[in-house]
Amino acid sequence: MSAESIKRRSILKIRDGEAEWTEDTVVTEEVLTIKLNGEEFVTVVCSPEHMEDLAVGYLASEGVIRKPDAITSIRLDQKNGFIHVTADPVNPLYDALQNKRYITSCCGGSRQGFVFANDAMTAKKMTGQHVKLKPEQCFHLMEQLQKSADTFRQTGGVHNAALCTEDGIVLSRMDIGRHNALDKIYGYCLRNQVSVKGKVIVFSGRLSSEILLKVAKIGCEVVISKSAPTERALELAEELQMTTVGFVRGNSLNVYTCPERIQLKEAPVY
Amino acid sequence: MSAESIKRRSILKIRDGEAEWTEDTVVTEEVLTIKLNGEEFVTVVCSPEHMEDLAVGYLASEGVIRKPDAITSIRLDQKNGFIHVTADPVNPLYDALQNKRYITSCCGGSRQGFVFANDAMTAKKMTGQHVKLKPEQCFHLMEQLQKSADTFRQTGGVHNAALCTEDGIVLSRMDIGRHNALDKIYGYCLRNQVSVKGKVIVFSGRLSSEILLKVAKIGCEVVISKSAPTERALELAEELQMTTVGFVRGNSLNVYTCPERIQLKEAPVY
Repeated sequence: MSAESIKRRSILKIRDGEAEWTEDTVVTEEVLTIKLNGEEFVTVVCSPEHMEDLAVGYLASEGVIRKPDAITSIRLDQKNGFIHVTADPVNPLYDALQNKRYITSCCGGSRQGFVFANDAMTAKKMTGQHVKLKPEQCFHLMEQLQKSADTFRQTGGVHNAALCTEDGIVLSRMDIGRHNALDKIYGYCLRNQVSVKGKVIVFSGRLSSEILLKVAKIGCEVVISKSAPTERALELAEELQMTTVGFVRGNSLNVYTCPERIQLKEAPVY
Repeated sequence: MSAESIKRRSILKIRDGEAEWTEDTVVTEEVLTIKLNGEEFVTVVCSPEHMEDLAVGYLASEGVIRKPDAITSIRLDQKNGFIHVTADPVNPLYDALQNKRYITSCCGGSRQGFVFANDAMTAKKMTGQHVKLKPEQCFHLMEQLQKSADTFRQTGGVHNAALCTEDGIVLSRMDIGRHNALDKIYGYCLRNQVSVKGKVIVFSGRLSSEILLKVAKIGCEVVISKSAPTERALELAEELQMTTVGFVRGNSLNVYTCPERIQLKEAPVY
């Protein structure tokens, strides 16, 4: 966790009728414009960490690049809020796609569902069955994610995502933007040739359709969240044959789709 | 809360080692494209309620229209996911602005900070001092917001925002998108000439810079959140002279900026 991702400031704390000035830690946001081959591609707001991974993950997740070696250079100019990416080849359709202006619903929304063509091209069905998880492993992974979430504990202001094996965290990333945390993981995996086979995503936030799609693009069959899914996310998960686990809290969790990847001691009661 | 905002589905619940199939309630998402004067303006994902207010609030908050009577017609075509808006006059700059493609960071992000020109034009400094709130009133309003949050209690999947007087809720809106909940409030106020003078916004989600800006555009001096602010949001709040209250939980809250609108029995301890 870098120092620039958080800031100290003095606040007025009121508790049980008493008011006092105290020091508190607050999470920072930074505006980053990705320039692709010299042209402004997109402006995101993010936590100022792992911004190169974010840019690569974003471009891959949007279907602009198909392979990591399409990226020929990356240069971060953090002072001015730019990251300069050159890539070849880029998806010939992206020029047409980028004229389609959209926004996320933020916190539970999908930018597109399958409304936009690049998603349909990028997300793939999970026909394999490489992952088998016991409920105890889900509880354990969520616990590990929460332990790794330093900034969240300090500020209450960020989301965390982790790429995990069945037994533990391989890579965890935080960001004020839920999607950014996943893009940072995606970008890291692409840039460092980390295989996602047999791995799962554990996530602190809600499972919207957009989050579900990002997990699908990364290539994980299972996503485990502390929070609730949306109906659209579950419909997509069914279509893509992904396992969605939500509300992992204490000794309880919900399996919403494709429960065959969750290993039970006994068959469930109907 | 409309029936179409939630759906029942059967899930596998695992608790204390026991697995059973049960029925659960899940929140829905819907894709809505706002067509302005015949052209696609933006696609948002939202909870399927109060979509006309959402469209008007969105256009106002983006600075595309300046006054509610600029809207000459609205027609919702929910089946196909369109809302057709005609408006005159529209901000002559919006054509130029809309070519600037950006995304939200989602959950803590700003689409723009003051990066984009339309914000600088739309947000205004809160030089007046119409609101004075006791801490007890903050606690009470947050409690009322949570009581009004039916869908959240059922599904864990939405955010809630409310326009309040010092004593109670005037209007509350929920959405899977944090920003949408505020746009729905803004749109309602514009369409029904509800004055925001002396009123405050109470919000279930985190205070990112984008949320702060939306509150500023609506015209409220005080925003009260159950959750954490970001540093950028607080910098904007200082600049706009807005009072930000966060982490309202039980008998405790934090005042981050402009504490003079919070009425204390005694001067705070330094």
